[in-house]
Amino acid sequence: MDNIRVVYYEEPDFESPILVEGLPGVGNVGKLAAEHLVEQIKAVKFADIYSKFFPPQVLLDDEGVIRLVSNSLYYSKGEGKRPDIIFLTGDYQGLTPEGQYELSDFVLNLAKEWKVNLIFTLGGYGIGKMIEKPRVLGAATDSQLVEEMKGKGVVFSKGEPGSGIVGASGLLLGMGKIEGVKAVCLMGETSGYFVDPKGAEAVLRVLASILSVEIDFKELESKAEQIDLITSKLKEIETPQEPKREDLGYIG
Amino acid sequence: MDNIRVVYYEEPDFESPILVEGLPGVGNVGKLAAEHLVEQIKAVKFADIYSKFFPPQVLLDDEGVIRLVSNSLYYSKGEGKRPDIIFLTGDYQGLTPEGQYELSDFVLNLAKEWKVNLIFTLGGYGIGKMIEKPRVLGAATDSQLVEEMKGKGVVFSKGEPGSGIVGASGLLLGMGKIEGVKAVCLMGETSGYFVDPKGAEAVLRVLASILSVEIDFKELESKAEQIDLITSKLKEIETPQEPKREDLGYIG
Amino acid sequence: MDNIRVVYYEEPDFESPILVEGLPGVGNVGKLAAEHLVEQIKAVKFADIYSKFFPPQVLLDDEGVIRLVSNSLYYSKGEGKRPDIIFLTGDYQGLTPEGQYELSDFVLNLAKEWKVNLIFTLGGYGIGKMIEKPRVLGAATDSQLVEEMKGKGVVFSKGEPGSGIVGASGLLLGMGKIEGVKAVCLMGETSGYFVDPKGAEAVLRVLASILSVEIDFKELESKAEQIDLITSKLKEIETPQEPKREDLGYIG
Amino acid sequence: MDNIRVVYYEEPDFESPILVEGLPGVGNVGKLAAEHLVEQIKAVKFADIYSKFFPPQVLLDDEGVIRLVSNSLYYSKGEGKRPDIIFLTGDYQGLTPEGQYELSDFVLNLAKEWKVNLIFTLGGYGIGKMIEKPRVLGAATDSQLVEEMKGKGVVFSKGEPGSGIVGASGLLLGMGKIEGVKAVCLMGETSGYFVDPKGAEAVLRVLASILSVEIDFKELESKAEQIDLITSKLKEIETPQEPKREDLGYIG
Repeated sequence: MDNIRVVYYEEPDFESPILVEGLPGVGNVGKLAAEHLVEQIKAVKFADIYSKFFPPQVLLDDEGVIRLVSNSLYYSKGEGKRPDIIFLTGDYQGLTPEGQYELSDFVLNLAKEWKVNLIFTLGGYGIGKMIEKPRVLGAATDSQLVEEMKGKGVVFSKGEPGSGIVGASGLLLGMGKIEGVKAVCLMGETSGYFVDPKGAEAVLRVLASILSVEIDFKELESKAEQIDLITSKLKEIETPQEPKREDLGYIG
Repeated sequence: MDNIRVVYYEEPDFESPILVEGLPGVGNVGKLAAEHLVEQIKAVKFADIYSKFFPPQVLLDDEGVIRLVSNSLYYSKGEGKRPDIIFLTGDYQGLTPEGQYELSDFVLNLAKEWKVNLIFTLGGYGIGKMIEKPRVLGAATDSQLVEEMKGKGVVFSKGEPGSGIVGASGLLLGMGKIEGVKAVCLMGETSGYFVDPKGAEAVLRVLASILSVEIDFKELESKAEQIDLITSKLKEIETPQEPKREDLGYIG
Repeated sequence: MDNIRVVYYEEPDFESPILVEGLPGVGNVGKLAAEHLVEQIKAVKFADIYSKFFPPQVLLDDEGVIRLVSNSLYYSKGEGKRPDIIFLTGDYQGLTPEGQYELSDFVLNLAKEWKVNLIFTLGGYGIGKMIEKPRVLGAATDSQLVEEMKGKGVVFSKGEPGSGIVGASGLLLGMGKIEGVKAVCLMGETSGYFVDPKGAEAVLRVLASILSVEIDFKELESKAEQIDLITSKLKEIETPQEPKREDLGYIG
Repeated sequence: MDNIRVVYYEEPDFESPILVEGLPGVGNVGKLAAEHLVEQIKAVKFADIYSKFFPPQVLLDDEGVIRLVSNSLYYSKGEGKRPDIIFLTGDYQGLTPEGQYELSDFVLNLAKEWKVNLIFTLGGYGIGKMIEKPRVLGAATDSQLVEEMKGKGVVFSKGEPGSGIVGASGLLLGMGKIEGVKAVCLMGETSGYFVDPKGAEAVLRVLASILSVEIDFKELESKAEQIDLITSKLKEIETPQEPKREDLGYIG
């Protein structure tokens, strides 16, 4: 069998599209952001990607009907200043380094076929503590893109992230650069302890401005409030008069 | 060498056969159920599947004669309302995600050759505690099958199993759906701590009714009684007047 | 690069040769036995097998000259009742299940080219405690071989080893059986805690009688005495008047 | 996609060049040494090697521009007694045994194309304790090379390193020997607890003399002094009047 298999439901034409990747990762920031944008601009699924680099697993819907774990491709045709946008999101990233490389190579080949103009990869930047106003850090395939992104409020901070970027959000840039495909990574700050809608919102506000998209953030904000509620409850438990070692267990 | 190799002892013809998969897994429910059904309807082995995705191991019979670990295929020709049935059971599932995908793809290709009408995959649903009357939960490749199965006493419960289905019992559905092969997964509730003949019996009672097979459950019931005996003894040890933390160690 | 590569120093002709495998394993029994026999009958190395399934490692001789880790093939032409014998021994077994299968498949293909009459695989049977007179347990590809081996003092004991045989000593039998190559596994009982020359001697005494080879066991016996000395010293330390938990650490 | 991919920026001609490998490893001795030599003789990068055997990761420069992790090739044309030198250094070694073999095989094929005269692999020899004057241990593909290296102050000590040499520094010798390529491994003694510029300096002093290169060691010496400062501070913390078990934790 093939390592990777795409099933197309439609094969749309694109004009200099933008590719936005948001797969599971730190705080699930990238996936949350990409999925919220897909919903907001009513992007349409046109393909599913299956691979033996994903876990051997099916997921169930509420009825009991299964689907194989996958990555999915959505598109939204441009309007006015808003360009054609293609989205890559999904259940998992590749399980092994080889799988990561093969999957990113596969996506890059599609991107070249579609004559993608620019790739945005979305992710979280785990800082190990709760944060009120997450910054959006950036990385790019060339210094001109760095300058452009600075103008959009993206923070480029020497030594952050110090260990580079691991996974699809990094590889699409790294392999893209070799192939001559321009790409930017936007990383929302996040504690990394929870699924983090606040980090996703920060990333989306920057991306929305770049792509000339109007986004309603209510849903993300309400998710963020729920998380805040949970974490503040946890804080209360954590700081009784006589703190105990066990109370910190949830961080582990 | 090939990743997967089949040795045929016979190449029977089938008429719209049903494929029943029962490989090792949670509580060994699927394997127990499939093997009991193979014995009850005197199904005949017609092929062995060997693979480098299985452990590098041989097993010994009582005499000292070895055989390489394998999966095996059995068949039973239909009679009256009972359809032709093919069984897939064996010593192991694939050791890696890639192995899992390759083996399920291999079986699905055989299923398409044989024009298999419907696949049943049998497994256990681990709930982490002992259970008196295990339910049989279901999952299926489409909603019509879900409805049919509900009519047979299969339980479809929103959010169960929450993490989906991992391994061959899931993949044959997930990959089958893509290939246009209909499939149902039947999961017997089980603690997951022991090999569980009670879960296997629950699954088989549902399957027997669907396939119009008469099954004698004495052997499974006697196995279940032995397990009950062991667990009740363990309970006694576990609940002395002054319970100690160490007594729970067997769960670990 | 090829997964497996052989470098031949000589390509001898064989007449219905016997293949003897002794690679590292439990108590290193198989490797010790095969290497001792190679020395005793002055077998000649005729090939080295290299593979990416072995660790990426070189070993140094006393001078500082390196060699890549390998398996090696030796031969000894027959004389009188003693048949032609080919030996497979080496530094490592394959690191992964796939590597194990590929390497055994490779050796079996050579065995078929050489028209090998019978394969003996040598190994240890770990029983978790020190043993004075190790038995030699057996396993074989067919029941006639089992009977022949019983006549040579090999023990076939129902349920031993209960978990089958893992690694090259098992696979050469398991895959050999499928390919129509006859094979026997001889397992010397061993604690499994130490390199065990006593287990190796037991295995060799049986094999020597089968192959009509005269063997001087002095060297193995002297190695065994050294190990006995060490273990009896450890016993002294282990059983002082007030035993401490730490004293048992060497078993771990 | 290919397992390994080279991007050339230049394809220089070489005359009987020397290949020097210094990749990450124990104490990072080999990488430090090779990179210092690259800087000192102003060697020029002529190619980058990318591979799915490396981690799926990009690194950022101070500006925020990324590059995919890689190994890199540099060269310096000879002058007077100094030969043409090619350097292999980089971010990572292959992650798996297979990756290690494939990458070393790839480099050896390049070495044969370039008609490399001799390979030097540089590494650290971890001895588990701080050391004032690190020796430089050696290993080679033949005994004549051993003798030559002894004349240059390289130490060949029976039984060191007892476990052989693992990784690229070993494989280039082991696979080189099979291919008829001469090679020497130089190992600087190092505690193995820290990045060790002192071990790198020891290795470089030997290599510089062999290659007739003049090297300024100031930078390495100043790095070594910084490490010394840190370790002496740690020592102070470690040896208070009443030492506690926890203080040793940093050794890990």
